[in-house]
Amino acid sequence: MSQHRHPGAPGRAGTVPALPDLPEATVARLPVYLRALHQLAENGHETVSSEGLASAAGVNSAKLRKDLSHLGSYGTRGVGYDVEVLIGQIESVLGLTQSRAVALVGVGNLGHALAGYAGFASRAFRIAALFDADPARVGEEINGLVVHHVDELARVAVEERLAIGVIATPAGAAQAVADQLVAAGVRSILNFAPCVLSVPEGVDVRKVDLAIELQILSFHEHRKASLTGLPAGGPAHTLTTRPGDAPPTDPQEAIGT
Amino acid sequence: MSQHRHPGAPGRAGTVPALPDLPEATVARLPVYLRALHQLAENGHETVSSEGLASAAGVNSAKLRKDLSHLGSYGTRGVGYDVEVLIGQIESVLGLTQSRAVALVGVGNLGHALAGYAGFASRAFRIAALFDADPARVGEEINGLVVHHVDELARVAVEERLAIGVIATPAGAAQAVADQLVAAGVRSILNFAPCVLSVPEGVDVRKVDLAIELQILSFHEHRKASLTGLPAGGPAHTLTTRPGDAPPTDPQEAIGT
Repeated sequence: MSQHRHPGAPGRAGTVPALPDLPEATVARLPVYLRALHQLAENGHETVSSEGLASAAGVNSAKLRKDLSHLGSYGTRGVGYDVEVLIGQIESVLGLTQSRAVALVGVGNLGHALAGYAGFASRAFRIAALFDADPARVGEEINGLVVHHVDELARVAVEERLAIGVIATPAGAAQAVADQLVAAGVRSILNFAPCVLSVPEGVDVRKVDLAIELQILSFHEHRKASLTGLPAGGPAHTLTTRPGDAPPTDPQEAIGT
Repeated sequence: MSQHRHPGAPGRAGTVPALPDLPEATVARLPVYLRALHQLAENGHETVSSEGLASAAGVNSAKLRKDLSHLGSYGTRGVGYDVEVLIGQIESVLGLTQSRAVALVGVGNLGHALAGYAGFASRAFRIAALFDADPARVGEEINGLVVHHVDELARVAVEERLAIGVIATPAGAAQAVADQLVAAGVRSILNFAPCVLSVPEGVDVRKVDLAIELQILSFHEHRKASLTGLPAGGPAHTLTTRPGDAPPTDPQEAIGT
């Protein structure tokens, strides 16, 4: 078996060993491999070929082999990867063998959904504190946690050892919240507010922007329509037109231009 | 002014002109530029340099100039880009001058939040229909829309000319929903369920996976901790330790390994 843990640098007692500086795209795919591996393990698979894992993860197998080689994991010819060993390697690299305390700031509609989101309640993450700037929301209890005023962030960050901050506020409030998180020592931020955040060196920000995802899909819809010569908006136009029918009104509400 | 619309292929009457096949990474950045441009316009700016726009969008200016050159937009030396012209060009390429009907399937916590999400209610997108498989939810009214049973998808897709499907169901239900969306003629899917979807050629899927975003942040937290030699979990450890204090218990709940 040529699978083994990446040796890393020798760690000082009580510290984490140094980790490889992986390409960002590889880091982004490791969680996808991990999910596929967990599913394989649940279904009783002990080994998996690179092709099998690549297909389960929705990537091509050359890319998968390259990604895993960064971890020092090459599989065994004719056998593939040991599922449990690979799960352990990926979890170790991603730091998922520790539990990180997550602060959620902004408990509007989206914040409520995130507070109840199962993905946050995995063994590696737990929502440890909720915050909002609206006095009417402070004191509200969501999933067993009481909403604090955002001005208490610094105090609670110390008490709860908050590691990750999730911003689910309106865009206008997000930068101030990011500043408060950084001042409180939080160095990893997941931003749902539709804006670009400025943070100092050493703070990582990931951005989830639903409007941008929709606009990217819009581009593809638009391009598909331009290729087929059909009006954008899917084949509904075709489906509803039968011989003898009056031509339907244009499905697209033209805006601007 | 060297800015002009990309000529594209000559369009047939009533159809959309052919669009350039832009690199996926460029497509993903165009909405970010668009947001920055709207903000500049709101603040009264009529022109912007590539450096100014790049900084507002959080990318480097060489990348921005390259991206915009795909649109046939090069700005004017010493003047920069005309803000309104560039907004028009990007909106045109992204197909945002039309309104697309969005179907939201799954109205649990996340679905409720998405139904109320302002980003969906822009002029280019409108949530036109809500669906759920749970009979107890069917008939519920959210933001003025009544929840349909998911089995009505095909009928409603035609009536409402649904162009984009948003899947906010549990992972186990997502593939069946995707199949129903595709069968109903929807060719663009935004998937919030934590799973890989199989769809036929010509259907675009974008994936928003909150657990994966957290795991990517975890990697960076883990790596920062390995570089500084501090235990992972932020400087809370340091902040709470004062001379004379008893050493705090390890902030990290060790799991597995």
